[in-house]
Amino acid sequence: MSPERAVDAVRDAFVAHARGEWTMPPKVYVPAYPAGDFRAMPASGGGYALLKWITSFPGNPARGLPTVSGVVLISDASNGELRAVLDAASVTALRTGAAAVLAAETLGRGDAGAAAVIGAGVNGRAVARTFVARGRDVLLWDVDPQRAQAAADDAGAAVAPTLDAALAADLIATVTPGHEILLGPGSLQPGQHVSLMGADGPDKAEIAVEELARVRVFCDEWEQASHAGDIAHAVEAGALGRSDVTTLGDVLVGAATGRQSAEDITVFDSTGLAIQDMAVALAALDALDRLDDVQLLDL
Amino acid sequence: MSPERAVDAVRDAFVAHARGEWTMPPKVYVPAYPAGDFRAMPASGGGYALLKWITSFPGNPARGLPTVSGVVLISDASNGELRAVLDAASVTALRTGAAAVLAAETLGRGDAGAAAVIGAGVNGRAVARTFVARGRDVLLWDVDPQRAQAAADDAGAAVAPTLDAALAADLIATVTPGHEILLGPGSLQPGQHVSLMGADGPDKAEIAVEELARVRVFCDEWEQASHAGDIAHAVEAGALGRSDVTTLGDVLVGAATGRQSAEDITVFDSTGLAIQDMAVALAALDALDRLDDVQLLDL
Repeated sequence: MSPERAVDAVRDAFVAHARGEWTMPPKVYVPAYPAGDFRAMPASGGGYALLKWITSFPGNPARGLPTVSGVVLISDASNGELRAVLDAASVTALRTGAAAVLAAETLGRGDAGAAAVIGAGVNGRAVARTFVARGRDVLLWDVDPQRAQAAADDAGAAVAPTLDAALAADLIATVTPGHEILLGPGSLQPGQHVSLMGADGPDKAEIAVEELARVRVFCDEWEQASHAGDIAHAVEAGALGRSDVTTLGDVLVGAATGRQSAEDITVFDSTGLAIQDMAVALAALDALDRLDDVQLLDL
Repeated sequence: MSPERAVDAVRDAFVAHARGEWTMPPKVYVPAYPAGDFRAMPASGGGYALLKWITSFPGNPARGLPTVSGVVLISDASNGELRAVLDAASVTALRTGAAAVLAAETLGRGDAGAAAVIGAGVNGRAVARTFVARGRDVLLWDVDPQRAQAAADDAGAAVAPTLDAALAADLIATVTPGHEILLGPGSLQPGQHVSLMGADGPDKAEIAVEELARVRVFCDEWEQASHAGDIAHAVEAGALGRSDVTTLGDVLVGAATGRQSAEDITVFDSTGLAIQDMAVALAALDALDRLDDVQLLDL
């Protein structure tokens, strides 16, 4: 599936969710600490039900294994029939890239220039590929210069000479493990947009609470983001409340305002929603239906 | 996998759960009403994490489709790696048969004779097969005599001449959709045991509240059974409380008493636990490891 198709599908998913047509029961964590955890993420809508079973094992790369792995199950909601089992890492990368770019295009300045992607892991590469597919110049930065170069070559991006050079871009996507704050107090400039894609747990953050408190804040879903996203720290500190944060879906359906001026600093806190996975899974089913020459295994 | 192996595995699972070694986050329902629903059932323990994605679409058989379908995912809890994807209906049938028989053998009289199985659907047949595999004579009854005969032939059981004849057995397992109460007030006789396997939702029941109130009541797991099992109606009516109900696992580990006399009437309310599925899934992995001649598909 092309990154452009994923952006369209994920936009439709945010719209359907904002309208209450697609729904998500809360995700369930199955702990396997200290090594990692499993997440069961359900969603339903559009005549389908979805379950993503996906891991986060941060120590895996040191053993030659992926941090994130699992499967996406997509079933027909009219009779329960399982329609497909998809590789969860691929679906996650496509929808994460799509959400980062969709937020940047929706909330960034109309005349925004280059995009910068911080973090060249699986999902960072997907964000870079998606920006490139949408016709944007991309600077890529990673703590590991070799990984940055390989990812830039793969995505058709350029390696940023320094982290500061990357952080000066009009559009920024941070796709790091969230162990270090990249955006300290006062670091963002008027007119910039940041899609925060990395931090998705209680001990993770890519932006300082003080910086969140002085910018315009958007998120994918309030419950999830206020508990596990970058904004959770600001909510806990009393620096942000529900009324300070707008969901991307509400902006897309016109129920809320996005950027209000060229001087606004906009920040999108992404925690990753099962409806995004469903968007990509349904687009994959659709693509499969269009293929002329599919060989189905007869097991 | 043999039914005997499933009984051993499920017994070990109830023991591990009672000891706190195996755990289950609550199951999540994804509604697709009025047609049916999906359930995501997680569990962890023994170095593995499990997710069962399973349906209940009661109108499916009329369309030639199974009521229950889905997959069981079993992953290595040390690194998140998916180890197997199993057919959920097969796993469910094996573990349901095992739980019904395990409860009957644990809670029934030591000198109990024949067993009767009411309901000859997929899981009813599995219960009958499991009783037969454990060396017991089995009477089978179903509203559909043809289905009863086919299931009896398949399981090595006999068709009960009447429902009353079946309900006179020392050991009874009810495996019906739960739309009708089979066991009315005063229907059970001293010394009988019933494993209630069918009712697993708010509008379902196989036994009257008055009958539950006068017998010794056991369940698989209090939270789940008191919300969705047969005992939920008695709990709601104030006829049963937490202290009136003993878990099978506590009996198996010796933390609680099972049957106390030959005159006791014992009733086991089964709602179906993800730890039972994990027991069967791990036994299947173990059986796979022992096979000499496994052909793995190279996809």
